[in-house]
Amino acid sequence: MAESRPELRDRLAIIAGGGMLPRYVADAARARGENPYILSLRDESGEDWSGYDHETASIGNYSVIATTFRKHGVGRVVLSGWVRRRPEWRDIHAPLRTLRIIPSVVRTLLTGGDDAVLKMVIRLIEAEGMRVVGVHEIVPDLLGSKGPLGRLAPDDAAEADIAAAAAAALALGRLDVGQGAVAVGGRVVALEGAEGTDGMLERVAALRAAGRISQRRKGVLVKLCKPGQDLRADLPSIGLETLRRAKAAGLAGIAVEAGRSLVLERAALVSEADAEGLFVTGILPDRTEKA
Amino acid sequence: MAESRPELRDRLAIIAGGGMLPRYVADAARARGENPYILSLRDESGEDWSGYDHETASIGNYSVIATTFRKHGVGRVVLSGWVRRRPEWRDIHAPLRTLRIIPSVVRTLLTGGDDAVLKMVIRLIEAEGMRVVGVHEIVPDLLGSKGPLGRLAPDDAAEADIAAAAAAALALGRLDVGQGAVAVGGRVVALEGAEGTDGMLERVAALRAAGRISQRRKGVLVKLCKPGQDLRADLPSIGLETLRRAKAAGLAGIAVEAGRSLVLERAALVSEADAEGLFVTGILPDRTEKA
Repeated sequence: MAESRPELRDRLAIIAGGGMLPRYVADAARARGENPYILSLRDESGEDWSGYDHETASIGNYSVIATTFRKHGVGRVVLSGWVRRRPEWRDIHAPLRTLRIIPSVVRTLLTGGDDAVLKMVIRLIEAEGMRVVGVHEIVPDLLGSKGPLGRLAPDDAAEADIAAAAAAALALGRLDVGQGAVAVGGRVVALEGAEGTDGMLERVAALRAAGRISQRRKGVLVKLCKPGQDLRADLPSIGLETLRRAKAAGLAGIAVEAGRSLVLERAALVSEADAEGLFVTGILPDRTEKA
Repeated sequence: MAESRPELRDRLAIIAGGGMLPRYVADAARARGENPYILSLRDESGEDWSGYDHETASIGNYSVIATTFRKHGVGRVVLSGWVRRRPEWRDIHAPLRTLRIIPSVVRTLLTGGDDAVLKMVIRLIEAEGMRVVGVHEIVPDLLGSKGPLGRLAPDDAAEADIAAAAAAALALGRLDVGQGAVAVGGRVVALEGAEGTDGMLERVAALRAAGRISQRRKGVLVKLCKPGQDLRADLPSIGLETLRRAKAAGLAGIAVEAGRSLVLERAALVSEADAEGLFVTGILPDRTEKA
């Protein structure tokens, strides 16, 4: 079928899901001279993309996505932001050719975890002859490193919370459920599901206000890559909003996986973390258990 | 030290945490001729215990608990209901003798998961020469059995949700984090942390209302025993309130671990489940993975 495709060019497309990340990636790409084309996911991206060439489509409407990309000369695609909603059966449109190549595509889109869905989208795009690149290839300075980013470092209590929350986050990740967990006083109090990190932090703040979490112990948010996660899919990310919600939840700080996380608005985040007395640190979790 | 203790008699005491279970156990015990003494946990039990001999104390104030039990001739103790709040350092009072016997007691009370804390309380009570009995020994008809309790049984979609949520609940249980998970459309969308089952179901209802969970797929709540859980500690339980919240969250039904769960108000629950079109079923999860 390759002969029926128009010539592939090398324009960068951004598939934009929810959260702040897609906008950040688009602005960063433009700043380095790219002219990104935005495919805004219906019901996911809340951004106003009027400053960019853009189109809106459902994640399930793969036919439109592929056609649009070909029409606009897209050769590279970056996935960014979350995909909370699964498409309904009636919303899935993909070329029969694609469904034959990848028989599990429909089932995965309907029922897979986040990571499974994103991996499937990557395979679909690559089957069209386009290249999927990681967010970190567009904005390489986003990758977190090991150790504290700011002035503050975790104390012993925070280290115990990091260990507890990291164990829970890894267990979740193995099930392709979520990437985040919060531990307070050495005990995991919240696990991230479909509500996302911000929703989970809001819950911790509410539990704290209701006296169901100790007032005297702070706690830590940990976000880790899922075991086996394709780095081109939805990397764990934190930004100013994460920091503010962590602060509102009474946490001592945030730990993210070194080398596999995105720290957005890094300079502003570190400066606000220092001012507010929170640490932000990169960790290397023990992944010796079977992934 | 045994010679300094007053003679132990055989009165039943109920350590009453949060939720409906303690009241249910107390009423059931009285119905079979017991005269239960209630130790109501401060900030946990919301019940009015004025119809029973009772005392209120903090879970950390172990000295008072032990003294009160001896004074009232308690020989058997049943633990029931949840313990959400961890005691603060300043609230922990235990005889030095006990602390010497069980050096990890303070650390566990402060930072352990639910199961660890309850196991520690069991050891403390047994060190006093009293016997800890399971809720199922007082009200044996509470134990769930395998298969549907009512008219409805899970369909194929619900079975897939049960499998996904059960895998997540087992992973949580291994970490002593929680007992419950909700899956919708084959995908785990919520995991139980310190907010408890009711709080988790409220969240699922909110996610559904916000369109972040499919309107077309129902989903299932699964509650399982933690691997290695002492059956005398906090068994997974469901009641009318659980059913109502599951209904409000748009779920198709509830699955609990056969032989290791409490189904409260069983007749009323089954009749309401039938009327509302939800299934309630006992399952035997695959525990072949290392516990």
